[in-house]
Parts: sequence; C-alpha cells; structure tokens
Amino acid sequence: MSGRRKTTVESARERLARRLRSLRAARGLSQEGLADLADLHRTYVGSIERCERNVSLDNVERLATALGVDICDLLIQE
Amino acid sequence: MSGRRKTTVESARERLARRLRSLRAARGLSQEGLADLADLHRTYVGSIERCERNVSLDNVERLATALGVDICDLLIQE
Repeated sequence: MSGRRKTTVESARERLARRLRSLRAARGLSQEGLADLADLHRTYVGSIERCERNVSLDNVERLATALGVDICDLLIQE
Repeated sequence: MSGRRKTTVESARERLARRLRSLRAARGLSQEGLADLADLHRTYVGSIERCERNVSLDNVERLATALGVDICDLLIQE
C-alpha cells in the first residue's frame, strides 16, 4: 500500500466487525460459539460481522464480556 | 476513597453518560446544542445522559463526530 493513502474513515460498524472477527478467531470461536457465550443469536453475530446491524450499546457490552475484553477493545481504530 | 474498593463495574451506558456530560461541559455546550450538532433530539441526548437509552452504535458515532472525539473517547472507563 506504499504511496497510497486511505481516503475513507473506518466506521464504527466496520471497527466492531473487524474486531469481533479478529478476537473471535483468536479464541477459536465460531460465530455460533460466540453467540452462545453472549446469549445472542448466531445469525445476529453474523450480521454484525457483515456490518449490517446498528448494534445497541448493551449488545456491544455483552459481546465484550463474552470475549473478556473492554468495550473499547471492540471499537478501537485500525 | 483510600481503603475502599469499588464493588460495582461501570456499565457501558454509564460510561457514555459520564463522558457525554464531561465533554459537552468542557465545550460549553447545552444538551440542545450537542443535539443540534449531532442532528439528534434534545430530549434524546438528555435521556442518554440519564442512562435511560440503549443507544445504537451509529448514534454513538454521531455524538463522537459532533464532539470531535474518537468513539472510544465516549466509552473509556473511569
């Protein structure tokens, strides 16, 4: 990517999707496994990872708790 | 607070409420002023600051943009 500048800013939804995928993979969890831990539906977790959902703060918190991280770890910029 | 331990963990809603009040005050903005900047309703901003709302990520992002801070600055722990 040398010489190229990123012109778009990563949205909150994109940050969350990227971090969820990354932290979930690091723990060897499937979308279903994470959904179970967070008491959310498997398809809901999938839709978050595709940036389709305007997730509520309470659910961001549940996902963070399930992954054992701080809320901000799910929203940190690239 | 010496010798005392905090036994409750600050929730995501409480973090957002505390940070909104603090950053808004630091900028000399009223709830209405912040609402205008973020294109949200004044009563909605008030209800967020009272932890009554399960705010969506898109609206957290709008508030962060209006205040000129990163999303994580609105959710940082105490």
